Amino acid sequence: MRGSRTTPTASPEIERLISQLAKVPGLGPRSARRAALQLLKKRDVLMVPLAEAIAQAAAAVKTCSTCGALDTTDPCHLCVAPERDDGVICVVAEVGDVWALERAAGYRGRYHVLGGVLSALDGIGPDELRIDSLAARVGQGGVREVILALAATVDGQTTSHVITQRLASFGVHVTRLSHGVPVGGELELMDDGTLFAALQSRRPL
Amino acid sequence: MRGSRTTPTASPEIERLISQLAKVPGLGPRSARRAALQLLKKRDVLMVPLAEAIAQAAAAVKTCSTCGALDTTDPCHLCVAPERDDGVICVVAEVGDVWALERAAGYRGRYHVLGGVLSALDGIGPDELRIDSLAARVGQGGVREVILALAATVDGQTTSHVITQRLASFGVHVTRLSHGVPVGGELELMDDGTLFAALQSRRPL
Repeated sequence: MRGSRTTPTASPEIERLISQLAKVPGLGPRSARRAALQLLKKRDVLMVPLAEAIAQAAAAVKTCSTCGALDTTDPCHLCVAPERDDGVICVVAEVGDVWALERAAGYRGRYHVLGGVLSALDGIGPDELRIDSLAARVGQGGVREVILALAATVDGQTTSHVITQRLASFGVHVTRLSHGVPVGGELELMDDGTLFAALQSRRPL
Repeated sequence: MRGSRTTPTASPEIERLISQLAKVPGLGPRSARRAALQLLKKRDVLMVPLAEAIAQAAAAVKTCSTCGALDTTDPCHLCVAPERDDGVICVVAEVGDVWALERAAGYRGRYHVLGGVLSALDGIGPDELRIDSLAARVGQGGVREVILALAATVDGQTTSHVITQRLASFGVHVTRLSHGVPVGGELELMDDGTLFAALQSRRPL
């Protein structure tokens, strides 16, 4: 493996392609080299469309100033869609969570993307998250329920707690996602905390 | 996981970015979505340089008409480098093999990239590989040795055999890479074929 990252073996353009691909989350230095090679072998069908897709998305996509999601319009299509319920706001940590919930296709309200969760370790406090703008949205009135769709981790639950306290004075109904056994999940493979939560919140059949 | 590939959840630009990223070897549909999200969060530092690197490499890189490697010049820098030995040609299956051998930094001759190996299963015969152009290079004279650096697989060895026969009339010395235990490899983990080859070609200390 010696010199596998540092020794230039190809032209500067190819080395630059490899080093940029290696920064893509999910690709390391070795898989970036393999990917570069495959891309270069299929320049017309793979590379040119990929470069265009990346450049166009980079130019067109912006952060929605209302909810914090990504879209080509501001406010985003989820914030302006007339058929969605203005009375419910679902609070998520990241934009990817919005996409996941939209794929699940069971939610018809609005969203609010915090941009992460509180984390003492990573130095992320309330000011680093979009909590103020959430309170401002709720404070404008018309919101009946805020659903906290944050991870069932210590940081996620701390964040839920802080938001619940922050919204207490507005008299809005604050809920969270249910915890339990994932659909399709094997009981045997579940951790104790999940099984405990699933037992605690058992439902009549 | 239902609809995880087909349901559009974001703008067309983002969906197109995800679907193009999913075609990059090493990224599947799920990791492409994660990669797209991370790229979109770091538009200026990650996305724009990546798009430029891909577009520039796609435009600048060509296949060397002499050896079949990839470079921004034709013939490539390995074919014209004056300090390299014209008398030795190392035959490899893919461009990535050239890069690997150059990183090993022990070879100072020329290269010839076949573009694959013979494969009855994949329908790759001698006409699909750059064997004719190898014979033409050897036929021009001045080549003392052809090193067959092909994989120690059935297809690789078949290809080596076919090339050896093809070059027999030129009176050139044809060699292959030694087989044996990889440097740093644990004996216990080696397959029988490797250990047999390593025993057969044992060397005095």
